[in-house]
Amino acid sequence: MHILIIGAAGMLGRKLTGSLVRETLDTPTTGGSRTPLRLTLADIVPPAAPEGFPGACETLACTLTDGHALDRLIGERPDVIYHLAAIVSGEAEADFEKGYGVNLDGTRALFETIRRIGLQEDWKPRVVFASSNAVYGGAFPDLIPDDYILTPQTSYGTQKAIGELLLADYTRRGIFDGVGLRLPTICVRPGKPNRAASGFFSGIIREPLNGQDAILPVPETTRHWMTSPRSAVHFLRHAAELDPASLEDRPNLTMPALSITVGEQIEALRRVAGAGVLAHIRREPDEAIARIVAGWARGFDPRRALALGFRAEDNFEAIIQAYIEDECHGRMP
Amino acid sequence: MHILIIGAAGMLGRKLTGSLVRETLDTPTTGGSRTPLRLTLADIVPPAAPEGFPGACETLACTLTDGHALDRLIGERPDVIYHLAAIVSGEAEADFEKGYGVNLDGTRALFETIRRIGLQEDWKPRVVFASSNAVYGGAFPDLIPDDYILTPQTSYGTQKAIGELLLADYTRRGIFDGVGLRLPTICVRPGKPNRAASGFFSGIIREPLNGQDAILPVPETTRHWMTSPRSAVHFLRHAAELDPASLEDRPNLTMPALSITVGEQIEALRRVAGAGVLAHIRREPDEAIARIVAGWARGFDPRRALALGFRAEDNFEAIIQAYIEDECHGRMP
Repeated sequence: MHILIIGAAGMLGRKLTGSLVRETLDTPTTGGSRTPLRLTLADIVPPAAPEGFPGACETLACTLTDGHALDRLIGERPDVIYHLAAIVSGEAEADFEKGYGVNLDGTRALFETIRRIGLQEDWKPRVVFASSNAVYGGAFPDLIPDDYILTPQTSYGTQKAIGELLLADYTRRGIFDGVGLRLPTICVRPGKPNRAASGFFSGIIREPLNGQDAILPVPETTRHWMTSPRSAVHFLRHAAELDPASLEDRPNLTMPALSITVGEQIEALRRVAGAGVLAHIRREPDEAIARIVAGWARGFDPRRALALGFRAEDNFEAIIQAYIEDECHGRMP
Repeated sequence: MHILIIGAAGMLGRKLTGSLVRETLDTPTTGGSRTPLRLTLADIVPPAAPEGFPGACETLACTLTDGHALDRLIGERPDVIYHLAAIVSGEAEADFEKGYGVNLDGTRALFETIRRIGLQEDWKPRVVFASSNAVYGGAFPDLIPDDYILTPQTSYGTQKAIGELLLADYTRRGIFDGVGLRLPTICVRPGKPNRAASGFFSGIIREPLNGQDAILPVPETTRHWMTSPRSAVHFLRHAAELDPASLEDRPNLTMPALSITVGEQIEALRRVAGAGVLAHIRREPDEAIARIVAGWARGFDPRRALALGFRAEDNFEAIIQAYIEDECHGRMP
């Protein structure tokens, strides 16, 4: 089994790699040999090779707009291709040409390379595409159903929605077996605070747990759709194993997650870590951020993904516990 | 007022041109001068210049993938740009690269040319984009609501859905004022039978009216969504005059039409032209065509377009009468 991860240096790419490597190490050897796993890790910066991995692993720094690099990556005919690479929302909005250049042209160049190479021989990889809830925008119901129209209100969301359409058409054409996952906001994101407008959803949990202050820029009534990095990795792994026929010509799926208010997040934090840590949450209303967040989906009714076996935490304490277990060696920091 | 029609040699382009020219000729001169109308007509074959038109009219044969031609067309900074050009459904399915090359790359090249020229000066044209009900596919309700997901099952539908997403993002960005129209099947199409899978919807009316035989390849229970060429021209003209604010960040609209079965079409023909002409309808079931047609939408609930003033015939007799008036000088042939 040869797995290519494009965008392997990002948070999800690293966690996915870790999950694949752990499973390989945990699999009992059969007659002296493990199921051989081969990994190719690509990103715009060189991804770290996983420590202790017994299989073949190649790392490559390249861009999706570099045709030679794509030819080389796809020319190896991986069985599974994860496409997690993207210019993020804020940057795609600030830099029109860069966002379209990578998120649309790059995605299409990847799909076209698969098509060209597939024309020459019988090879049909699984392609797992990281889409986003940013494909939704404008007015929508509190719980968005699976058959709701995609009307993104950002260029990033537009590019992801176009990626979904291309994925579905290339899949329908038999060029590859695509699965698109509309990923929820990931919480609790490990690491340092970043400047994403959604960063505070993680910050108000992560920083207090680590004895540091976090800024809350929106009212506690703000409702959002989030799941743990652990669930996101499960989505990516499960997508690689789905029976293509089960997707019924609609290979793009809204992933399950938890619809929860900021106030409920804070209450869960109190239950897990005690009232003391809550003093680290500094309420500093920011109208610009509140306006952006108000345009985001508040919840979904992801029946198709649930029927296909995708699962996510149904309470926020479990999401906090996943952070403590996965990022803090299981001990409250 | 300078109007550019890309795809001016097609059936809708010619009828739109005719409508604009007639209105100019019918407008009373004020103080000796009409409201000046300037037309630019472009298509892959040279469009015919309209007879008797008193204003400036330029015709140009070019492709959407010809950057120089686009620069020249858009460099004139028309007030309204109609984008009606496309590789049709069957050809886009048969020739993957040609379909994507014109319907996606050509559309994007047009939008990008507008963006580049608009960066240099304060100019924001109205862009009216001919989309299609082919953006819908797979399982759907009998009457598809305005907020239903687009899951095309053809490459043509995929390319139109991507065009809609690009139109919405360029509009949101303030690059142009876009309006996308999901056009119904046009019936009764004038002219000779063509090889489109939908051709029989027109053929079973047009040919019997003209004393010729027509083949009906599907059961009479087949239901479809159709309107007259006259309504389609009204859609295109009305779209140019909409207040952009009325579109509320969702500039792509399903147009109204009539949801009707083939049996009801035939019954209307009998009422208009008498039972005698029905003998010209030859029932020759064709499973391939029946299968294609079964995947098409049967009807819509186009509330947004109706609220915005788009109108279509609500009975099929009116559609037949429009054909007789517009194509047969008002006399039964």
